[in-house]
Amino acid sequence: MFAVTILGNNSAVPAFNRHPTSQVVTHDGNNYLVDCGEGTQIQMINYKIRRSKISHVFISHLHGDHYFGLIGLLNSFSLLSHQQELHVFGPSPLKEIIDIQLKVADTKLCYALHVHHINKASTLIDTDKLTVKCFPTNHRIECYGFSFKEKKQPRKLILDKAKEYSIPAIFYERLKDAEDYIQKDGTVIKNEQVTEPAEPGKKYVFCADTKYDEALIPHIKGADMIYHETTYLDNLRERAESRFHATTKQAAELAKKAGVKKLLIGHFSSKYDTLEEFEAEAREIFPATELALEGVCFEI
Amino acid sequence: MFAVTILGNNSAVPAFNRHPTSQVVTHDGNNYLVDCGEGTQIQMINYKIRRSKISHVFISHLHGDHYFGLIGLLNSFSLLSHQQELHVFGPSPLKEIIDIQLKVADTKLCYALHVHHINKASTLIDTDKLTVKCFPTNHRIECYGFSFKEKKQPRKLILDKAKEYSIPAIFYERLKDAEDYIQKDGTVIKNEQVTEPAEPGKKYVFCADTKYDEALIPHIKGADMIYHETTYLDNLRERAESRFHATTKQAAELAKKAGVKKLLIGHFSSKYDTLEEFEAEAREIFPATELALEGVCFEI
Repeated sequence: MFAVTILGNNSAVPAFNRHPTSQVVTHDGNNYLVDCGEGTQIQMINYKIRRSKISHVFISHLHGDHYFGLIGLLNSFSLLSHQQELHVFGPSPLKEIIDIQLKVADTKLCYALHVHHINKASTLIDTDKLTVKCFPTNHRIECYGFSFKEKKQPRKLILDKAKEYSIPAIFYERLKDAEDYIQKDGTVIKNEQVTEPAEPGKKYVFCADTKYDEALIPHIKGADMIYHETTYLDNLRERAESRFHATTKQAAELAKKAGVKKLLIGHFSSKYDTLEEFEAEAREIFPATELALEGVCFEI
Repeated sequence: MFAVTILGNNSAVPAFNRHPTSQVVTHDGNNYLVDCGEGTQIQMINYKIRRSKISHVFISHLHGDHYFGLIGLLNSFSLLSHQQELHVFGPSPLKEIIDIQLKVADTKLCYALHVHHINKASTLIDTDKLTVKCFPTNHRIECYGFSFKEKKQPRKLILDKAKEYSIPAIFYERLKDAEDYIQKDGTVIKNEQVTEPAEPGKKYVFCADTKYDEALIPHIKGADMIYHETTYLDNLRERAESRFHATTKQAAELAKKAGVKKLLIGHFSSKYDTLEEFEAEAREIFPATELALEGVCFEI
């Protein structure tokens, strides 16, 4: 499964039982945490996120509502005997902020923690199943979005057909890699005769905090789903602009221009006690919009 | 009213809907926050604590479960336009930890923040109504308890009696300060004839994290209420000792030896899903024991 679960959808100050930004991207049994506002570890308990499956944490920027829960999570992982290595990506000086707090508490983590500072668009993870990249967004301080792109999967073997043509099992992996098979008498069994096309890899992009900026389009173009902030309703465009945030219609406009399939909106200002208008305004421009409600898991 | 409201009563890792350490001491309309584990600002919302009334924060030590919520609180105060000065007391390098996080976020607080490092037993506040002192406890890292002592109030004027003896109103304040009044003919009106004794000032002591240590007794002797940690039940004395924590019976024993009136127990280990045994064990030694349950306000 490739999905994202929302742990926090509010901006700045917790309010109306909404929490600061955090979400978990799940892919192939791994949990990737994106941002970690205060209380994220408690939200993980509330929504039954398996903390032991978290191998990577991505911090978009060092405004508190996006990372004040990180140090508590790192600490708790150690108290809970987290087994695997943990990689944390975020802007400088994240490592120094973590280190001073571990040092003063005389805390020796029980797992290997690797903090990687990011400072430009770059590839952060590249395995045979997934690529994670970061790219700068347009915010008041240094800030990054993160894209999660599944690798194209191997073609699917049609076992009965492969047997019918007497293709030896040892050749099956090469069939999945789209090779043709040549029988002893020289007959060519075309790959398409014994395999089906692979599902194309899907793509999710977390656009972090940002004002409306078409420079983001190359990073999100054609994505299956993006998350874009909508701190304000559209009548507060000027305020949004001055604070390096976006409105409902701006997020929807960007999703439309980039030709994405689905838009999640969040990072709602604490001035709003209800969210219906956010959904309605964005859908005027981009109907496939969903509110990033806490606890909801969106399949990508 | 002089009271303490519990916001978090768990140790180390949040569990069973229990939160890390925090409590609010209310006196004469002011709120004094004692420790500030992650999520404290959300607990304040849950329990309707008036954040605008907080003028002082006391941090016992720099283990995360006692202060990871502080930076978020300081940040939110600014976003919520906190008006009054805020004084934070805690061990070094608390100020540096706060400063680096404000600086990287380019945050200018809208109120005056004063961070005071504490490093020995000392008086932190001394007004005409309240004295707050800190004292070292016996923990793995530098750690302080805090005592809140009401000043003795002025004696209470019996107005009818004062009028009966024709004492001029201008002298009433001196009567409250226990002076006798001498009439023109030399007759002495003894103070006790026109005033009643003042209520003695009450005392609450937060003993922070500590192993059993009778060196604490001078600081808590005769208190109306103390909070003492009971991380473990009494069958885990060795574990408690090795981790610089205390058990139920140890907390109760100390309360008894110090002749306090009431004992609150908390900082429960996440290994326990229920708390009844904590209460039962402590009450065997010290019957006036209460569990420091979250959301409960205990009048001192």
